[in-house]
Amino acid sequence: MTAFTHTRMVEIAWGDCDPAGIVFHPRYFEWFDACAADLFAAATGLGKRAMLAQYGIVGIPVVEVSASFARPCRFGDMVAITSQVVEWKRSSFRLLHELRAGDALAAPGYSTRAWTGRDPADPARIRAVPLPAELLARFGAPVPDAATGPG
Amino acid sequence: MTAFTHTRMVEIAWGDCDPAGIVFHPRYFEWFDACAADLFAAATGLGKRAMLAQYGIVGIPVVEVSASFARPCRFGDMVAITSQVVEWKRSSFRLLHELRAGDALAAPGYSTRAWTGRDPADPARIRAVPLPAELLARFGAPVPDAATGPG
Amino acid sequence: MTAFTHTRMVEIAWGDCDPAGIVFHPRYFEWFDACAADLFAAATGLGKRAMLAQYGIVGIPVVEVSASFARPCRFGDMVAITSQVVEWKRSSFRLLHELRAGDALAAPGYSTRAWTGRDPADPARIRAVPLPAELLARFGAPVPDAATGPG
Amino acid sequence: MTAFTHTRMVEIAWGDCDPAGIVFHPRYFEWFDACAADLFAAATGLGKRAMLAQYGIVGIPVVEVSASFARPCRFGDMVAITSQVVEWKRSSFRLLHELRAGDALAAPGYSTRAWTGRDPADPARIRAVPLPAELLARFGAPVPDAATGPG
Repeated sequence: MTAFTHTRMVEIAWGDCDPAGIVFHPRYFEWFDACAADLFAAATGLGKRAMLAQYGIVGIPVVEVSASFARPCRFGDMVAITSQVVEWKRSSFRLLHELRAGDALAAPGYSTRAWTGRDPADPARIRAVPLPAELLARFGAPVPDAATGPG
Repeated sequence: MTAFTHTRMVEIAWGDCDPAGIVFHPRYFEWFDACAADLFAAATGLGKRAMLAQYGIVGIPVVEVSASFARPCRFGDMVAITSQVVEWKRSSFRLLHELRAGDALAAPGYSTRAWTGRDPADPARIRAVPLPAELLARFGAPVPDAATGPG
Repeated sequence: MTAFTHTRMVEIAWGDCDPAGIVFHPRYFEWFDACAADLFAAATGLGKRAMLAQYGIVGIPVVEVSASFARPCRFGDMVAITSQVVEWKRSSFRLLHELRAGDALAAPGYSTRAWTGRDPADPARIRAVPLPAELLARFGAPVPDAATGPG
Repeated sequence: MTAFTHTRMVEIAWGDCDPAGIVFHPRYFEWFDACAADLFAAATGLGKRAMLAQYGIVGIPVVEVSASFARPCRFGDMVAITSQVVEWKRSSFRLLHELRAGDALAAPGYSTRAWTGRDPADPARIRAVPLPAELLARFGAPVPDAATGPG
């Protein structure tokens, strides 16, 4: 089955770049974060605020991330970022974001994000909670066996 | 030999945090970037501007990065980030940044950075150049054999 | 009476600067925001998280801001930002932040912030609420007459 | 004559917002900065990098800014920012950015920017230089009398 993907175009701004004239690398993670929101909005038909309310979560924070910046991008460049979920676990999932400048894959990045709610025992704390089967179905993902254990 | 390290204290600000009240993860990379600058300032005795001028480079951009966020940090938290170079190559090196909240290692991150100058053939372009032996000596690093090839 | 002030030192980072090598101006507002938190922490003896809990508010958002950047600052520069409240109203106040590079006043900025809580009628909404007299006392500010009207 | 304007749509991202769930105000200035670049790109037909090269400048830094945030915007909101130059001086100009959420003017902002080149006497320094008549013509702006003095 073809994975569900979403592509966002980003025009790199002056303020995204450093004194060497290239993207200051934390900006890539800001874009990838917005792309993850886009992907979930496309799959669920809900904006992020409505999605959090609908599923009763507080966010989907990144718990692990990696990226490489094979070729520097500069202000004025128009890039395309294609995102997809490449792995589903019980309460987390792994995304691949492929940032292309023209034909070149300039910055591929992976991130693992946790489906996160308030801790009922202490609402000031947050913790990962199981991904809803209904959400997985929207992505065409297999629904994990409840016995699979923590993810 | 003990590695050369540097520790920076960071008080997490309101504006570093997202609507879940925890650090928006690209901010970790901003801090790690400043910590890399601190580490080189401590080793060379030069601020970043003077260091770039001294060595004739345009920057030390990140070419690869990874981090995990084992436990969320929140605004008002004071954290300590200890940085060191864990691997030297011909024209790049790998850093480890360990962000601790109290005793807990909340966010360890690795980054590979390239020692980067202007391309003499096209000054609008930048490219990795060999690390100077004098710089390596300041870190107590072994000077690589010139025949080692590209890094 | 001498105003209550607080000074924060900021070393300007590579990532704060744009391709012209000078501070990208939104960064000044990030620093001023952290300085406002510092000032209130100094006056109340509470970190921002404890302060919000103590007074039952959700934040002190900026409702109006102005600044001028008389002289550009560059990465590696160490600057000092001195902050003070210059005007108190019923549910808002005005701050002055003076950013100095050496002896020069490089960037003075004003901001008006609202003391803001949840709207009891609709907790998803926020609205300005009166400043507590106890807080004003900590700043040595005159407690406004309740009849003064909205601020 | 109708002023030359440009409108950019911005979908407010999770990472643009603070723990109160509303836009962290420095982000408005990042968007206004990108909008200024858009406006000049629309007027000149050049991207920012090409524009800097064409006119031999290093940037158009903000020297003065003000904004008010009449109503908070939240992640997921789609806003429209309409920008125009409202005043031309010899080597600087003043922009108005009107950020609307639906019909409401949520955040109007003004900024004064300087047309800035390298100082011939010291290329490490930058300074304002006169706006080219050809650029003014593209905006339909009156070309100032050379005797008008500094701006």
